[in-house]
Amino acid sequence: MYCSEAKVEVRYGETDQMGVVYHANYIIYMEVGRVQLMKDLGFVYADLEDIGYVSPVMDLQVSYKAALRYGQTVTVRTWIEKHERVRTTYGYEILHEDGTVAATATSVHALVTKDGLRPVALRKVAPEWDAAYVKAAKQ
Amino acid sequence: MYCSEAKVEVRYGETDQMGVVYHANYIIYMEVGRVQLMKDLGFVYADLEDIGYVSPVMDLQVSYKAALRYGQTVTVRTWIEKHERVRTTYGYEILHEDGTVAATATSVHALVTKDGLRPVALRKVAPEWDAAYVKAAKQ
Amino acid sequence: MYCSEAKVEVRYGETDQMGVVYHANYIIYMEVGRVQLMKDLGFVYADLEDIGYVSPVMDLQVSYKAALRYGQTVTVRTWIEKHERVRTTYGYEILHEDGTVAATATSVHALVTKDGLRPVALRKVAPEWDAAYVKAAKQ
Amino acid sequence: MYCSEAKVEVRYGETDQMGVVYHANYIIYMEVGRVQLMKDLGFVYADLEDIGYVSPVMDLQVSYKAALRYGQTVTVRTWIEKHERVRTTYGYEILHEDGTVAATATSVHALVTKDGLRPVALRKVAPEWDAAYVKAAKQ
Repeated sequence: MYCSEAKVEVRYGETDQMGVVYHANYIIYMEVGRVQLMKDLGFVYADLEDIGYVSPVMDLQVSYKAALRYGQTVTVRTWIEKHERVRTTYGYEILHEDGTVAATATSVHALVTKDGLRPVALRKVAPEWDAAYVKAAKQ
Repeated sequence: MYCSEAKVEVRYGETDQMGVVYHANYIIYMEVGRVQLMKDLGFVYADLEDIGYVSPVMDLQVSYKAALRYGQTVTVRTWIEKHERVRTTYGYEILHEDGTVAATATSVHALVTKDGLRPVALRKVAPEWDAAYVKAAKQ
Repeated sequence: MYCSEAKVEVRYGETDQMGVVYHANYIIYMEVGRVQLMKDLGFVYADLEDIGYVSPVMDLQVSYKAALRYGQTVTVRTWIEKHERVRTTYGYEILHEDGTVAATATSVHALVTKDGLRPVALRKVAPEWDAAYVKAAKQ
Repeated sequence: MYCSEAKVEVRYGETDQMGVVYHANYIIYMEVGRVQLMKDLGFVYADLEDIGYVSPVMDLQVSYKAALRYGQTVTVRTWIEKHERVRTTYGYEILHEDGTVAATATSVHALVTKDGLRPVALRKVAPEWDAAYVKAAKQ
């Protein structure tokens, strides 16, 4: 299974008065990780939208383990947990600089037409991308 | 089981270029709902922090059903799914104006000391609040 | 000059580790105020987009006076500072609960076509809205 | 005058339904630029907070020129416009990939004690940092 690594510097505005990264911002880091995984495999999410598709989140799950703080550079490890005909599940591990797990997460994404929001298979829309995902998920 | 209702007007900056509310912002709406539930039961989250405690999110799960859009007033229904000794699970339903379910969600929260992050029972810290939660969860 | 008042409850995620509302979030409060002013005058911003126009910010200025905190209900006073042919300047005062000024601000907005981003006069696009603005600015 | 350059990849959640980066997010990019400038000169903002100081924004001004879009890597050029005894003014230019100016901006920051919020001179708190700023502003 191929695993991508993205580095994210915590931004000041991402903290809250608890002195740690606000929990909703982990969702943003997950997106940074997902985009990096696509890039590592040779694809750019924006291209999908340019040809008329969007990939909305269907389901989200995050387990918070150890709070992230300002001043840290976070590592987001992202992989393809499952790649089905019309939905893809990504897995994530968000890590502190010393390797401690800050959070684990998954997100499930569909692929739909921009106009009409009809589900489509990545295989039909972007066969090479689909093939890369099948391979990355298998490894 | 007591169920609270909060109204949230979608803010422009909460949308993304898909033309809908960005998925991470549902987490914000959940917090608005949770704060409203507390208020309905007679409690204010800020008071907990004033006496030295914080209530971090331990776990989060969201299922997205039907995208929210700018111009809508969203309803967040919040209830106490489970109230255990050191963790509380909230349930949520985020609704369109016509009652369509936009998302369902749960979040699990601990209660810890600000200094040291040691887990404590709400029952020890704020017995009346705990009693209200036990009752609200039971109903 | 007509002056609108919007109430905003500070959200937890809007604070930062300084223990106050993060400065970029005042820009969000300004938008809440602007939308309220429009509503008070009988208009809905979303309607403008529905007929093919958008109103981007051209210029922004904020002076921060006294930090806002979680637990507060903020008042945003908004008025029309100047209403010219192709641009409108809004004025803002963001207030603490006791009336202390947290910030003063202005923002300048254009009106442009969604496709092409060509500037248009509000007077051409929505004459009643324009008339209301002329009157609100004069008072 | 020393000028720092930071690269920022636009995040999906930073766009709005206008299909461009939401205007409040430029303020975030400015902070990324400011932190990069400090780093280039050998300093880390978090260190200031560790020794008991914070540096709140006093004043903000942004002129929007040409909208930023998802898929772009933005350049934030940051410099010290003016470094006075108790306040520092930063200048910014936010650029598209082809060098087009997306926005110009300035922000004025004070330095105050965390407890009490009493203004202090950077020269007293961190003389080397102050010397670097004097030099960077002069060049």
